[in-house]
Amino acid sequence: MSTGLLTINLGALVANWQALDAMSDSQTETAAVVKANGYGLGAPSVGRSLAKAGARTFFVAVAQEGAILRTALGSGPTINVFSGHMAGDTNVIRDADLVPMINSVDQMLRHVEALPGAPFGLQLDTGMNRLGMEPSEWSALRDIALAQNPTVLMSHLACADEPDHPMNAHQLNSFREMTEGLDIPRSLAATGGTLMGDDYHFDMTRPGIGLYGGLPFAEGRSVISLDIPVIQLRDVAVGETVGYGNAWTAQRPTVVATISAGYADGLIRALGAGATLYAGEQHVPVIGRVSMDLITVDVTDLAQPPETLQLLGQYQSVDKVAGFADTIGYEILTSLGNRYTRNYIE
Amino acid sequence: MSTGLLTINLGALVANWQALDAMSDSQTETAAVVKANGYGLGAPSVGRSLAKAGARTFFVAVAQEGAILRTALGSGPTINVFSGHMAGDTNVIRDADLVPMINSVDQMLRHVEALPGAPFGLQLDTGMNRLGMEPSEWSALRDIALAQNPTVLMSHLACADEPDHPMNAHQLNSFREMTEGLDIPRSLAATGGTLMGDDYHFDMTRPGIGLYGGLPFAEGRSVISLDIPVIQLRDVAVGETVGYGNAWTAQRPTVVATISAGYADGLIRALGAGATLYAGEQHVPVIGRVSMDLITVDVTDLAQPPETLQLLGQYQSVDKVAGFADTIGYEILTSLGNRYTRNYIE
Repeated sequence: MSTGLLTINLGALVANWQALDAMSDSQTETAAVVKANGYGLGAPSVGRSLAKAGARTFFVAVAQEGAILRTALGSGPTINVFSGHMAGDTNVIRDADLVPMINSVDQMLRHVEALPGAPFGLQLDTGMNRLGMEPSEWSALRDIALAQNPTVLMSHLACADEPDHPMNAHQLNSFREMTEGLDIPRSLAATGGTLMGDDYHFDMTRPGIGLYGGLPFAEGRSVISLDIPVIQLRDVAVGETVGYGNAWTAQRPTVVATISAGYADGLIRALGAGATLYAGEQHVPVIGRVSMDLITVDVTDLAQPPETLQLLGQYQSVDKVAGFADTIGYEILTSLGNRYTRNYIE
Repeated sequence: MSTGLLTINLGALVANWQALDAMSDSQTETAAVVKANGYGLGAPSVGRSLAKAGARTFFVAVAQEGAILRTALGSGPTINVFSGHMAGDTNVIRDADLVPMINSVDQMLRHVEALPGAPFGLQLDTGMNRLGMEPSEWSALRDIALAQNPTVLMSHLACADEPDHPMNAHQLNSFREMTEGLDIPRSLAATGGTLMGDDYHFDMTRPGIGLYGGLPFAEGRSVISLDIPVIQLRDVAVGETVGYGNAWTAQRPTVVATISAGYADGLIRALGAGATLYAGEQHVPVIGRVSMDLITVDVTDLAQPPETLQLLGQYQSVDKVAGFADTIGYEILTSLGNRYTRNYIE
């Protein structure tokens, strides 16, 4: 094996879905967000495992993702598309039996003209100003839209990673104002909202990041590990430099391991100084710059020469690795590269 | 189309290869580095175009990439593997007729034991301390290795993006000392080294980034454009916020376009404030945080509502976009996402 081994624990993924499902009462359905190829872990495998565990509704970002997921799941589960019905999407929506979350009057017109009678949901903007109908747009369209029996009314929280942020209550109130008294299922909460309790659950929660072992679901199980093979070891003398731009200089006689992964594998270049990997239980520091296909690591303190080093796993979460690069766990997940061997375990 | 359209100009790519080829004399072969899936642009398509234009030698990072490229190219072209012969690589190297660049005594032993008589090259470390044999290792192994007729002796420059860096001359001298008088083809220069002139060319140059329109080959043609569809437009009032964490607040009545791409498509999260896209010739600023599948853009100043916005193209190079995120063009290229529709033109 000359590239990293990405092990994906589908059992842990299912356990996370079940734990998030248990946070809402039995009237609330728990859907699953599998956009961005299942947050980088493979939407077909992730989707099949969750469907087997009982998930009946899935969310993807764009229609093409929905078509791939439909092939994996077969008929039955509902597949909702956040970007709604965009120009050029009609055939895919029809053929893969997708449910667009309509974001605007333009999308509404496109959908009912192209696919009269086909199901759709409605995405409402409650303050994030990113996707969904504005309150004024919604007021104008509401009666027409409701006459078409939308499957769901949904919105999205901008600050759910910070439970105390006043934006959450503001969006909750807006969502209630826009949807109260309508006899249509409602959904507001992704992972963060699910954790904020009953007020946010409505008829459907739709966790994403929490399924995959990322914050803000701190109690979630770790889902992935990433082990990267060592290509070679070398002794570097005091004063010698390592890597591009001579960015690192040895302050002591150093054993350097060059491992077979780099920023082309999603180990983003902003990692580097301060980042660590693990050899068993022992951490070892990255040195020098992350290259396209290679990373150099100081393994001087290890008793045994390592054959692989672990970046992600029981000792280091996606969020910890994200911290090294001043980003968030979501980006580490969705950047996981195509060259890794993906090994799915139950 | 509900995701970005990535247009890859194979004619420009070939022109860049030819321009780099013309910088060295006719005794020097010009190879092509197509690792990391052809720097994100698709190694099979890139490789076939360059082979058709006359490239006879290709470099990949790992054996698995070589196998994919061999399928695309068929028999004939030489495919060299920078990571050499790693544990587990033997069958792939044999079946795909790859030439490992042997990096260590361990790899040398593995190769000659597993595949006696099979071709290999030798990678020497001239100071980067990342891949290749150390001078002392090389001294010990040299006579044995040379008796096996290696195809090439190669090394890699750590600071070739900075032509005046003293490391370049230091590595050049080391390479000469380690290889002078041996009757084996030699290769030291990637794109940066190719630009530094005859002294660095030896028997083979092997440009990578310069083929794909990236610095330091400033005269290279632009190879890609990326056009991202607008999902919806909205009016945002003064004082309203946009995106996660309420990171952006409108200072004027603003028209916001939400476009269908985000960090899961390789538009790394460190883009954001300061980044721009283009509507025709007019630039428009990114506002708020880059989300997983979405980016918000201030399009207030456009006369017409845009259907798509361009991130990469004639007005904005990969290096310019890299600058928005404090990284390098290489990372922008190799991060280009799987969801884009890839359109190859000649």
